[in-house]
Amino acid sequence: MKLKLIVSFFLLTAGFAAFSQGKQTAPGVEKGLIKVSVMYPYAEGKTFNMEYYETKHMPMVAGFLGANLVKYTIEKGLSSGIPNQPLPFMAIGTFYVKSLSDYQAAIAPNRDAIRADFPNYTNISPVILVSEVVK
Amino acid sequence: MKLKLIVSFFLLTAGFAAFSQGKQTAPGVEKGLIKVSVMYPYAEGKTFNMEYYETKHMPMVAGFLGANLVKYTIEKGLSSGIPNQPLPFMAIGTFYVKSLSDYQAAIAPNRDAIRADFPNYTNISPVILVSEVVK
Repeated sequence: MKLKLIVSFFLLTAGFAAFSQGKQTAPGVEKGLIKVSVMYPYAEGKTFNMEYYETKHMPMVAGFLGANLVKYTIEKGLSSGIPNQPLPFMAIGTFYVKSLSDYQAAIAPNRDAIRADFPNYTNISPVILVSEVVK
Repeated sequence: MKLKLIVSFFLLTAGFAAFSQGKQTAPGVEKGLIKVSVMYPYAEGKTFNMEYYETKHMPMVAGFLGANLVKYTIEKGLSSGIPNQPLPFMAIGTFYVKSLSDYQAAIAPNRDAIRADFPNYTNISPVILVSEVVK
């Protein structure tokens, strides 16, 4: 009887551990977050060094953002999804943050360092979209 | 002694349950996936009904994609991240798929139905970016 009780306790614990673990990383956790997407439009003669961007530039900027940064992503443009149209963007880097004002406050004192790094990987002037995750 | 053994077994099971649960939803699982981003540029006079898009249009298109679709996201454009520049996009809907050719094969027979639904939520002609998740 005592053994059964102890075993039940550990089964219950296992269940809770699995449940809470699942909740922490559940999908949909991004809803309501702010995305800052730095988008590099494609045009003839434009260049983009993805290796430098992934290993140097993005980690540097991410390092300025502290606990406000939930995650960041990088995507490489492949083609337009509409036939006979040019590639819209060569690359997009996106910061998912909790607060836009905290993001702006963290970037402001580092703006010169960020801009000075641009020529190390691209000759494109990016477009920046601030958006909210709906789903 | 026997009790200790059984208790150890359940502790171990709890540990594995938590570990495997964590792995299933680990970050970085999206690397290598193809993103098809349908981007709605902002301009004066352009309209976008987010509620219809979220509850009707996107679920309809997602329904055509089957097991190739890993997830889809919706974001609402708020502002340009560069002062004095207009909002780049009013909204972006993104399908994360395993295979671009399977995506195209699934969309082709439904293109007319998808296009016919556009006027129900927007008067914008979208730009479509096909990209690869680098990070």
